Amino acid sequence: MNNTLLNNELIKVPEPTLRRLPWYLSNVKLLRQKGERFVSSTQISKEINIDASQIAKDLSYVNITGRTRVGYEVDTLIAVLEDFLGFTNLHKAFLFGVGSLGGALLHDSGLNHFGLEIVAAFDVNPSLVGTTLNGIPIFHTDEFEQKMSEYGVNIGVLTVPIEIAQQITDKMVAGGIKAVWNFTPFRIRVPEHIVVQNTSLYAHLAVMFNRLNFINEIK
Amino acid sequence: MNNTLLNNELIKVPEPTLRRLPWYLSNVKLLRQKGERFVSSTQISKEINIDASQIAKDLSYVNITGRTRVGYEVDTLIAVLEDFLGFTNLHKAFLFGVGSLGGALLHDSGLNHFGLEIVAAFDVNPSLVGTTLNGIPIFHTDEFEQKMSEYGVNIGVLTVPIEIAQQITDKMVAGGIKAVWNFTPFRIRVPEHIVVQNTSLYAHLAVMFNRLNFINEIK
Repeated sequence: MNNTLLNNELIKVPEPTLRRLPWYLSNVKLLRQKGERFVSSTQISKEINIDASQIAKDLSYVNITGRTRVGYEVDTLIAVLEDFLGFTNLHKAFLFGVGSLGGALLHDSGLNHFGLEIVAAFDVNPSLVGTTLNGIPIFHTDEFEQKMSEYGVNIGVLTVPIEIAQQITDKMVAGGIKAVWNFTPFRIRVPEHIVVQNTSLYAHLAVMFNRLNFINEIK
Repeated sequence: MNNTLLNNELIKVPEPTLRRLPWYLSNVKLLRQKGERFVSSTQISKEINIDASQIAKDLSYVNITGRTRVGYEVDTLIAVLEDFLGFTNLHKAFLFGVGSLGGALLHDSGLNHFGLEIVAAFDVNPSLVGTTLNGIPIFHTDEFEQKMSEYGVNIGVLTVPIEIAQQITDKMVAGGIKAVWNFTPFRIRVPEHIVVQNTSLYAHLAVMFNRLNFINEIK
């Protein structure tokens, strides 16, 4: 269960909280490696420079209770966080567009450890269709509907050129995809009940370049 | 020049603006493909569902003026945006940690089109050191300081395991790296004048899984 039931009401976990929880997870994993058995929000706070009260509040969304003076049990906190974040059960996904970035993501087996399993990819390039990359089969985009019924997937990873980003998104949604992980810098439109997660590496680059220049100029 | 001088004062472009500008860029590129020569903020607004006034405000940071009734010239807007976002001149970078994600990023030649050129990578794995991946040489981490003087790099891409994320960051900064693109879910600490851009794919996955479950549960 990834959301919190409070007085029988489903609580939507705020996105900033969801983004901070993986920081706590990685930090607590590190403490476990150092042999720690208990951790308090104050300890995590010192390590990662976030208010202890914020950490306690974020962790209140997760189903775990700390003990006074000793804090949270490290093993339990890790297990509960991984489960809460959805990293423990594999979510099957299709990838659309085996270009440079799409191919790179197919190479990243690390996604598996965080709950995402790309089971097949789609492209129209005749030199790619029918081959596999890192063991993942590449089908022609036209085969998508048929493969949907075979694989039972509900996540689509979008790594196509921007010119066809909307068109492929529409195709995904029509075929039954419920969440789109959009790596294109294109702002796709979807019906209200479809989840979109935007991850534009290029937008992040733009922010980084700008900050770098800013620092150079104020010197 | 990536920052705006207003009354001789350097203006720091807000991060939300910097994240939206690539959306406008991709959208305007699409319009160019369709043969459009001019575009107004109202037109962009309709396409990507952001307030026209917000778009005009964002574009005011960029050194371009629209003409009444016709709007911005498409070719000029693209050129100015690409330049402003830092996509036109290549920023050299080193990558640290040729694991699954690091290797994937070395495969992504698309980064070059957005201004990032990974010129070398570092790892301690004896089976990797001395080899190349996608034409990019992999050196031993101990060779970093020496390679810094050879390559003249100021960006470091961090894709190491979380246990050594801080240690490698400290090494980078000591060696002269000015900006760290952090792909680990670890919250690294750096001196004030160092730029950090966090891109945790796994945090994005957590948000997506959570939203997907939420939608399933409220049905």
